[in-house]
Amino acid sequence: MNKRYINELSEGERVVTNFLVQSKQLLTTKAGKPYMSLILQDKTGSVAGRVWDNAAEFYDTFKNNDVIKVDATVELYNKELQLVIRRLRPSESDEIDLSDFLPCSSHDIEEMFLELCSYIESIENPYLKALLNSFFQEEGFVREFKAASAARNIHHVCVGGLLEHTLSTTRICEYLTTHYESLDADLLITMAILHDIGKVRELEISPSINYTEEGNLLGHIIIGIQMVDEKIENIPEFPSKLRMLVEHMILSHHGQSEWGSPRPPMFLEAEILHRADDLDVKVDIITRALARDRDPESPWTAYQKAIERILYKKPTYETDVSPEESPD
Amino acid sequence: MNKRYINELSEGERVVTNFLVQSKQLLTTKAGKPYMSLILQDKTGSVAGRVWDNAAEFYDTFKNNDVIKVDATVELYNKELQLVIRRLRPSESDEIDLSDFLPCSSHDIEEMFLELCSYIESIENPYLKALLNSFFQEEGFVREFKAASAARNIHHVCVGGLLEHTLSTTRICEYLTTHYESLDADLLITMAILHDIGKVRELEISPSINYTEEGNLLGHIIIGIQMVDEKIENIPEFPSKLRMLVEHMILSHHGQSEWGSPRPPMFLEAEILHRADDLDVKVDIITRALARDRDPESPWTAYQKAIERILYKKPTYETDVSPEESPD
Amino acid sequence: MNKRYINELSEGERVVTNFLVQSKQLLTTKAGKPYMSLILQDKTGSVAGRVWDNAAEFYDTFKNNDVIKVDATVELYNKELQLVIRRLRPSESDEIDLSDFLPCSSHDIEEMFLELCSYIESIENPYLKALLNSFFQEEGFVREFKAASAARNIHHVCVGGLLEHTLSTTRICEYLTTHYESLDADLLITMAILHDIGKVRELEISPSINYTEEGNLLGHIIIGIQMVDEKIENIPEFPSKLRMLVEHMILSHHGQSEWGSPRPPMFLEAEILHRADDLDVKVDIITRALARDRDPESPWTAYQKAIERILYKKPTYETDVSPEESPD
Amino acid sequence: MNKRYINELSEGERVVTNFLVQSKQLLTTKAGKPYMSLILQDKTGSVAGRVWDNAAEFYDTFKNNDVIKVDATVELYNKELQLVIRRLRPSESDEIDLSDFLPCSSHDIEEMFLELCSYIESIENPYLKALLNSFFQEEGFVREFKAASAARNIHHVCVGGLLEHTLSTTRICEYLTTHYESLDADLLITMAILHDIGKVRELEISPSINYTEEGNLLGHIIIGIQMVDEKIENIPEFPSKLRMLVEHMILSHHGQSEWGSPRPPMFLEAEILHRADDLDVKVDIITRALARDRDPESPWTAYQKAIERILYKKPTYETDVSPEESPD
Amino acid sequence: MNKRYINELSEGERVVTNFLVQSKQLLTTKAGKPYMSLILQDKTGSVAGRVWDNAAEFYDTFKNNDVIKVDATVELYNKELQLVIRRLRPSESDEIDLSDFLPCSSHDIEEMFLELCSYIESIENPYLKALLNSFFQEEGFVREFKAASAARNIHHVCVGGLLEHTLSTTRICEYLTTHYESLDADLLITMAILHDIGKVRELEISPSINYTEEGNLLGHIIIGIQMVDEKIENIPEFPSKLRMLVEHMILSHHGQSEWGSPRPPMFLEAEILHRADDLDVKVDIITRALARDRDPESPWTAYQKAIERILYKKPTYETDVSPEESPD
Amino acid sequence: MNKRYINELSEGERVVTNFLVQSKQLLTTKAGKPYMSLILQDKTGSVAGRVWDNAAEFYDTFKNNDVIKVDATVELYNKELQLVIRRLRPSESDEIDLSDFLPCSSHDIEEMFLELCSYIESIENPYLKALLNSFFQEEGFVREFKAASAARNIHHVCVGGLLEHTLSTTRICEYLTTHYESLDADLLITMAILHDIGKVRELEISPSINYTEEGNLLGHIIIGIQMVDEKIENIPEFPSKLRMLVEHMILSHHGQSEWGSPRPPMFLEAEILHRADDLDVKVDIITRALARDRDPESPWTAYQKAIERILYKKPTYETDVSPEESPD
Repeated sequence: MNKRYINELSEGERVVTNFLVQSKQLLTTKAGKPYMSLILQDKTGSVAGRVWDNAAEFYDTFKNNDVIKVDATVELYNKELQLVIRRLRPSESDEIDLSDFLPCSSHDIEEMFLELCSYIESIENPYLKALLNSFFQEEGFVREFKAASAARNIHHVCVGGLLEHTLSTTRICEYLTTHYESLDADLLITMAILHDIGKVRELEISPSINYTEEGNLLGHIIIGIQMVDEKIENIPEFPSKLRMLVEHMILSHHGQSEWGSPRPPMFLEAEILHRADDLDVKVDIITRALARDRDPESPWTAYQKAIERILYKKPTYETDVSPEESPD
Repeated sequence: MNKRYINELSEGERVVTNFLVQSKQLLTTKAGKPYMSLILQDKTGSVAGRVWDNAAEFYDTFKNNDVIKVDATVELYNKELQLVIRRLRPSESDEIDLSDFLPCSSHDIEEMFLELCSYIESIENPYLKALLNSFFQEEGFVREFKAASAARNIHHVCVGGLLEHTLSTTRICEYLTTHYESLDADLLITMAILHDIGKVRELEISPSINYTEEGNLLGHIIIGIQMVDEKIENIPEFPSKLRMLVEHMILSHHGQSEWGSPRPPMFLEAEILHRADDLDVKVDIITRALARDRDPESPWTAYQKAIERILYKKPTYETDVSPEESPD
Repeated sequence: MNKRYINELSEGERVVTNFLVQSKQLLTTKAGKPYMSLILQDKTGSVAGRVWDNAAEFYDTFKNNDVIKVDATVELYNKELQLVIRRLRPSESDEIDLSDFLPCSSHDIEEMFLELCSYIESIENPYLKALLNSFFQEEGFVREFKAASAARNIHHVCVGGLLEHTLSTTRICEYLTTHYESLDADLLITMAILHDIGKVRELEISPSINYTEEGNLLGHIIIGIQMVDEKIENIPEFPSKLRMLVEHMILSHHGQSEWGSPRPPMFLEAEILHRADDLDVKVDIITRALARDRDPESPWTAYQKAIERILYKKPTYETDVSPEESPD
Repeated sequence: MNKRYINELSEGERVVTNFLVQSKQLLTTKAGKPYMSLILQDKTGSVAGRVWDNAAEFYDTFKNNDVIKVDATVELYNKELQLVIRRLRPSESDEIDLSDFLPCSSHDIEEMFLELCSYIESIENPYLKALLNSFFQEEGFVREFKAASAARNIHHVCVGGLLEHTLSTTRICEYLTTHYESLDADLLITMAILHDIGKVRELEISPSINYTEEGNLLGHIIIGIQMVDEKIENIPEFPSKLRMLVEHMILSHHGQSEWGSPRPPMFLEAEILHRADDLDVKVDIITRALARDRDPESPWTAYQKAIERILYKKPTYETDVSPEESPD
Repeated sequence: MNKRYINELSEGERVVTNFLVQSKQLLTTKAGKPYMSLILQDKTGSVAGRVWDNAAEFYDTFKNNDVIKVDATVELYNKELQLVIRRLRPSESDEIDLSDFLPCSSHDIEEMFLELCSYIESIENPYLKALLNSFFQEEGFVREFKAASAARNIHHVCVGGLLEHTLSTTRICEYLTTHYESLDADLLITMAILHDIGKVRELEISPSINYTEEGNLLGHIIIGIQMVDEKIENIPEFPSKLRMLVEHMILSHHGQSEWGSPRPPMFLEAEILHRADDLDVKVDIITRALARDRDPESPWTAYQKAIERILYKKPTYETDVSPEESPD
Repeated sequence: MNKRYINELSEGERVVTNFLVQSKQLLTTKAGKPYMSLILQDKTGSVAGRVWDNAAEFYDTFKNNDVIKVDATVELYNKELQLVIRRLRPSESDEIDLSDFLPCSSHDIEEMFLELCSYIESIENPYLKALLNSFFQEEGFVREFKAASAARNIHHVCVGGLLEHTLSTTRICEYLTTHYESLDADLLITMAILHDIGKVRELEISPSINYTEEGNLLGHIIIGIQMVDEKIENIPEFPSKLRMLVEHMILSHHGQSEWGSPRPPMFLEAEILHRADDLDVKVDIITRALARDRDPESPWTAYQKAIERILYKKPTYETDVSPEESPD
């Protein structure tokens, strides 16, 4: 059976296909009638669904994180699409491929991972290399790392999102080691790779993305330091000062206490890591906001709370832009 | 006669050489005796001077911005060097080369400028290219631009400092057009080159670096927009929307209103320009703070007010760092 | 046909009259039935409307900014009035007078403009007078200026609102030139007249009030400086220092960077202009909030987000207030 | 004997005249020798003094707040004048007139007070008039009020300063009752007169100006409410709601909690009082800063901490400004 | 008839019982049909109600603050319970006991009051004791004090809430007089008892809890000072410095100006009172948030706006916790 | 030989005794003559010293942290005492007892430690007890803990300061487990004891108190978590959720991110620990500020930067305060 993906839906069409249930809720209309509100997801995104008839009966036939098959019409509600579902049933396991239902990086995970490994290869400092290898030569960690999201929402929210963000940050840092003189390239690249490592334990994909208990109580910065400490314990003769630098770069990578780093970056590599990380996060937020936009008539997106501004859908100026396109 | 430069002075030596007078002041000791306090500069930096004897007589023999020849002893005062001057006289014009007395970028100005021109060459959008050429093919502007400092203090404070910072920002932006997809490379590179252009009128080097009146009243962001507007007026058929983008990128390049930008960056190229600019400024602040430090015993610099922290003089970890260097 | 105005509506009545469509939206009730939500306006204000029956058919018969004739009942919803519309059709052009549908200053525009002109007359400084005349003797500008609103919401939101606010600010500044000594009255009054001039391009009334693209990207402060610069270019021998003062007073009139002025007022006239402007804005916000209030039982208005407080509907104490009106 | 005033001193002159001692300190030079540091004042300002010889002997011959006769030379120290005192002795009471030594409003106190009384006369509301009279018909209060300073430093720092600021605020408020419609003029004018009344107990002039203990512990806002409450207790049938308005206007006149008002102004008269008060304070700060400036070469004053900016010594543009005065 | 309390309701049950009407509103469904929305309360809490049929008729049969008898079904709506009411009528006065409908401290009011009196008994300073007695030996005040709530929402929101919070704060302060040396125990305990006394006039229970007019215009801090001042006026020879200390401790008990105290605590007893008060408030907020929570599946409460965080529903670790409860 | 302690010195006396050198600096007077500036300390405090004669020769005879014997006169300089030193020499080791030179808690360290141990004894949860014992039954740790200061300046700055602050916080927490219901007393008391444990590595006394490198780079919160983690690794079957609670309470004990805690306290015990800690710190700051004060004439201390206020030297009101002590 053909899967129809969320990013392909258009207003007015009828779809009969499978989605994963992110959440379901049984509510009552003002007229006293029960209805069901769902958030459905697949690997291309998520969409709201409503069941107006027989909601209570349908409600008990599946759980959160199940995959269901729906027969629905796509409608426009408050500038976004939603599914008005006539019928639904749990999908058979042979109808579906679970990987279809996880939001997933648009880049190839194995290719990204190979590129990341080549950066690890390039490290010459034996202690830092040993530290990287202690993570990236352990199968269980690699599996978790590849699957991890970089955030619950806001940026790089998908399977492979952590890898994608880590690789992008590493590339920028690698470039900057060529741009600025006298940086400790091994240290900067190592920490670009490790700076967000705590996110594999801060977040869980089940398959919706949520904070774990330790994620909420401690945060990925503290967890990352703990993970690194555990590995360093087992690397013979790891220099204690180098250990402090490593821990400090994780600790300070959010830049200032208001953003979660109790210490500001106190040396050049720490400052650069913070700024490369932040740049990559902001670019992703803006790119996603523009991609989410569905209102072609306005040159402006909706207000983006994460960055406290609206965004301009900038027209492109190729060399052949003709002057009469200008106003007045 | 041999010039002895400020960055070569060491405690205890006697020097007989020329310096430019940044400022002079006639004061009275607590014992009621007049003495003179000076700030002297040459191309390698600046140093305080004191004249304890015959101060009043010496005081009237020269003006600010004159070059004088001093006979002095180098002493240590409050962790920094100062000159105790026995005798001084105005220098003869044939004794000196004015270029010896201006703090100057450590990079070759002509080479930097050539590289900047190659970026201009690469622009394909005819309007943006025309805009860049209207500045960089005008001899008077080019002369001012090459001579300008990027700031009064804080960062890139020297002749050529504006060029150095502009080139560095442009290089980073150029790299990012290869790193991130679908950026308007012409727009981003053009604005990297033009973002701080208002500084040629915000600051003056005379030869000490100060804000001009319009620099204080308007700031380089507004002046930069005015300069760009003036040029665009004379470029036929410059698209009015492109003009808004150009103006917005200057306006928003400080990132938020508290830092002087009444508008935040509202599209991706504006955000990236802001972050590339900010990164380059912060790297220069940290690099200068470490270079200024003269206390080899402490692993920490003095408190750096501009970035609100002390900095760690990070030890270098080469591959041959031996573990016994570690504490405990 | 008789127009019934929005500020005359009362709960329960039935109206058959014309309104301008500020916006329309076709939505779906929870029960899956389409309905239409409208914002309707006339010169006395705006009101929400709902069409519950045949919404889809009605939806296609008119566009935003059209005038429509409705047959509706006035109901109370969430402490405000709304129209439940049974029928509607586009109005014939001979049924309506467009001026009935624009929110409009409650003061006579021509009278206000005459008074403003008399302030211009009083200016003696020839450069400032030339600058004012270059605006106010240009017919196209005068038309736009008279029609402009001072804001999109918050304060002086109406045709003539900019003129009303400008005149009020000018009057206060004129008074203060008599109250405080040694002010440059010509400069202060000129800039009171010009301080918000950028709003004619920041906002558009079409006929609903919205930010233009340059309004969002640059803001009225920058646009105002550009407009003034353009005029000054054409005034022979306009003193360059006076130009800086003029530009600075526009730039600084919001008082501090957090409020959109990258420079604080740096001389007395600039400070006074900022405070006169701000006073007039705040008085209008409070006056409007009190006028909007429809809950006679509470001595307090709703929370006013723009000024972050609730307001007290102060009882009036005339000389004949009798003491028994006091509590307890 | 002729009194020479502080604002008449010029560098280099010798003076033999009387000053009041604001403070005295016996210190030791680095060479181990005792010297005395003094702050001297008269009605025109204050000046630093130094005694280099026989300091210990002179030190014991007078106390703070005594008037002494000095024989001194005027010198320039750190851009300000100071007195190097050779000899000094306590002044005889018949040599001096105490009023010569108090910093004093430049306006005539009795004239200002008469004008204030005319505003009181104009009040028609009998309760408010009774409240005003209960203060201003009490001889002791009037004496203190006329003598009070409006602040310890920052603004209106002088005998009569409170009266001067009160009158100026009242005039502006009176103007605004004509400018804006439907204000309760009696209430606004009454509270303009009473808003800072707590300052007569917050500050003491002895003859230097200092906070009292209750001034520090409670502040003039709370003290003002207490003073008003005490009077209202004795006005028969004073309406309790009017009392709340009166108290609220004192409480809220600093505008927001960060500036000492736990409540923001909650009705129009309170908002206007706050802004008229604030305007008058800021104008006085700027005027004083410009008057204090002694550096004719720079167009900028020193940094003014109270308003967080430097100020521009704006050139005056009379109608005859010739264009060649412009730069370039 | 049996009263069924709000904290006993469970989803799905049918209840026929009495509730007090906190507020009622007649609204229109999207389908144009009127319905009524109510907030009902009893001594155990509050709950939302909806009347879908015959809403308009029912609406006119009772007023806010009446007690009504409803026949309703308990449903779950948005994670909280609500009543869908079929029928309702005003309750007969002999059917109800008003005390059933006021939210009430879970501690015995008389017992708490007795304990508070024992603290008053312990005071030795005759002036402070007289001050306390002037309040707590006045029957009318005691009645109001026992009935008062400590806040409108946020913390200790109930009849007896002020007493409960006052007693808790007093106990903590009493403990701290034994923990820290050289505190003035009489002063600290007296002010712990009096610090929030202004709340008896800031809030009214009618029977829902609201700010009074003077509560909004002045706040309980100012009212508290006024109440204390009135009493002190009548205590012969009350030392004026002690009066300042008393007033200061009320004024500063919120700790800093942003939180409503124009003065920070300026001596040790004031600082300790502030912190004991704040601790007790925060503990109550957290305790209530945990008690309100109805979602047993999540270890986290909803976001708590008053303290800007989510809370962890910490598992209990008794000595017999077995290690296998740990994850992985 | 008799040691004369710093807190016993009085102006004018001559002392010949031993002090520890906290720092020494060779400077030049304005007259060009070298002199030495020293900070000397003993267990009762610290004092500045000056050597005016033969400074250079004396300078080379000792190092920082040596004990020297001085012959000096006590003088008053800028409201504080300083030593003018005529002669000095390094002390012989048999002349001195090192414990005389360390600032030391005024409480008996062993007694305090015994009390702390009794709290440890009282813990019933076996995992928490094992955790405490793993620290407090290790001799090396106990030695460091007893010797540690709680801060570099600000509060509890002395040998034993950490123990003193820890014990005080523990006592308060223990009291609060009796005051509030349903707290996990074992958890709260354990964490009161451990909350600042990272300070043994954040600070070093050598013998002056300074931040270590890891103290600056990581801070005591992170170090504390690392120390606890290391111990927990070796406690069999330590429940992983309990470990999270322990780590969270260290992490959150500064209350909010601006104060160094990336997470706010998320359950009741964490909130109470934060507030007990903060209370104890603030009480110590105020107590020290009052003790440091040497100006009996003013009722106010100097401005205390750490708590941003001046403090009132409150008069004591015993029952026998007579009313005539009141002002006026």
